Amino acid sequence: MYLISYDIHNDRLRLKVAKALLRFGLYRVQFSVYMGTLDESAENGLLAELGNCTQNEGWTPDDSILVFPLHQYSVDRLITLGEAPEDWSLIQQNLDTLVL
Amino acid sequence: MYLISYDIHNDRLRLKVAKALLRFGLYRVQFSVYMGTLDESAENGLLAELGNCTQNEGWTPDDSILVFPLHQYSVDRLITLGEAPEDWSLIQQNLDTLVL
Repeated sequence: MYLISYDIHNDRLRLKVAKALLRFGLYRVQFSVYMGTLDESAENGLLAELGNCTQNEGWTPDDSILVFPLHQYSVDRLITLGEAPEDWSLIQQNLDTLVL
Repeated sequence: MYLISYDIHNDRLRLKVAKALLRFGLYRVQFSVYMGTLDESAENGLLAELGNCTQNEGWTPDDSILVFPLHQYSVDRLITLGEAPEDWSLIQQNLDTLVL
């Protein structure tokens, strides 16, 4: 289970990153926060693609992408205030079946 | 160590939440993502304050705050693409001294 968040100023590049995250099977849980599982091959593929995005001409010095591998500890203790994301049940199934 | 992220549409309420997170000693690592340590009393105080914010008239049904207690597993494996946050050395000291 991964949590990935970004600050990317350029609209086109932000969209490119968002599409990559969704294509690799992550769920959007907030505007710039995604969660989901990645096997090792998908992790490597996604990290390579995100690395390429940081070389894109649209990337600015203020931009960043944070990739947090999550432990079951976090999954069990996650607190959601407000509306749960649309895909929350799917994400939670995913969380529940996660074995580290 | 906690990671807290938010989607809050109302500018004043978002600022109120941001100020609360900073006042409780968290660091801003991205526009809407914060990290830091909280002892149990601070955790309870902050959660109560964030809960109050969800009752604020500025809170919308699309708003959310996610609170992830992080395990050392995540801290050790965190990948940062792009510029590290300004306070990164402080955060990392914090991370390094974290005992779960």
